Amino acid sequence: MSDTADPLTPVAAAYERRAAEYSALIGTMDAVHPVDRQLVDSWATGVDGPVIDAGCGPGQWTDHLAGLGLDVWGVDLTPAFVARAREHYPRRTFHLGSLEELPAENQTIGGILAWYSLIHRAPDEVPAALAEFRRVLRVPTGRLLLGFFEGDTVEPFDHTVVTAYRWPVDAMAELVATAGFTVTETHVIQRRGARPHAAVLATLEPDDRPLRR
Amino acid sequence: MSDTADPLTPVAAAYERRAAEYSALIGTMDAVHPVDRQLVDSWATGVDGPVIDAGCGPGQWTDHLAGLGLDVWGVDLTPAFVARAREHYPRRTFHLGSLEELPAENQTIGGILAWYSLIHRAPDEVPAALAEFRRVLRVPTGRLLLGFFEGDTVEPFDHTVVTAYRWPVDAMAELVATAGFTVTETHVIQRRGARPHAAVLATLEPDDRPLRR
Repeated sequence: MSDTADPLTPVAAAYERRAAEYSALIGTMDAVHPVDRQLVDSWATGVDGPVIDAGCGPGQWTDHLAGLGLDVWGVDLTPAFVARAREHYPRRTFHLGSLEELPAENQTIGGILAWYSLIHRAPDEVPAALAEFRRVLRVPTGRLLLGFFEGDTVEPFDHTVVTAYRWPVDAMAELVATAGFTVTETHVIQRRGARPHAAVLATLEPDDRPLRR
Repeated sequence: MSDTADPLTPVAAAYERRAAEYSALIGTMDAVHPVDRQLVDSWATGVDGPVIDAGCGPGQWTDHLAGLGLDVWGVDLTPAFVARAREHYPRRTFHLGSLEELPAENQTIGGILAWYSLIHRAPDEVPAALAEFRRVLRVPTGRLLLGFFEGDTVEPFDHTVVTAYRWPVDAMAELVATAGFTVTETHVIQRRGARPHAAVLATLEPDDRPLRR
């Protein structure tokens, strides 16, 4: 995690090339469906402590959550996104860096929003990010919210920017549970004209009740 | 559809006995999760024309939607609910009657909210209600929003008041499509401590695009 000129990962390089286009199309809160916004807002109101917008892109969620009064900062691996976020939201805090090396001490963070920021990872690369989230979140009150594309099987698809993966919501929930979290809530949303998407909400509070009943 | 003293159906009779208890527990907007409320509100903002709160219970959604500026009335088969709704929301309109005989002319209604009001029907009884919704909704702009309990198979379960059925969201969506609607959106939500639930949004606007892609 630094601002030095490390070589970009393939995903960061792909976003770097299309950062302006992406930011204009879906990099603002206007592009968020009101129901999805309410999902994140409701989650955020239950967070106690600092929040990381993990994979913040051009920073719209960081700014939005800060506007709700949360102590939040964004982190992203794509320099053009971090530069744009700092320019557009000069009062907010953004870091350039990897989700696997978050600039935070162990168990100091109240909430992590990873809104479509794990979608480009191959399935075997997701656990490392979840482990890092687990490391920095407070025990037991830390909260995690993942947003991602949903499908019947774990499989890659041709995302506009670079290959992404869709996940059955139960498979992602299981991965989150395996990483040491307690899954508290899941959502699956299909809207005509958009890819099916999903959210998994989790905490570090032990709870043996199964989610389904 | 009348206020005369027809014998109550078993479901109406079951609710009649527990109307006060039910109304106190979940018969207010305070009992609605903010995300679910946003789902209904977002749907409602797209409705053009009068709205029916079909199976309105104690009337909280009728009152809520009227408060948003919609021209809405509620209808329910349980006399104690209609009486309570009229008492609590004297400025709103409520009818006592069946969902299969709505007091509305053909193709005059902009939107129908059926929020957990089809859940007690045996699966073979659901199409009749959908057909009645289809009859009264404007073509092609009419909109339908169903809320219901979700599960892996269509099956009955012991609901607090009287037997209810859970449905896979895709099965309910297919039934809605079979009734002549175009399904535009589905939601499946699981929350710890609550039964999984789902919503199906549909219109009468022809559209050949499949929901999933």
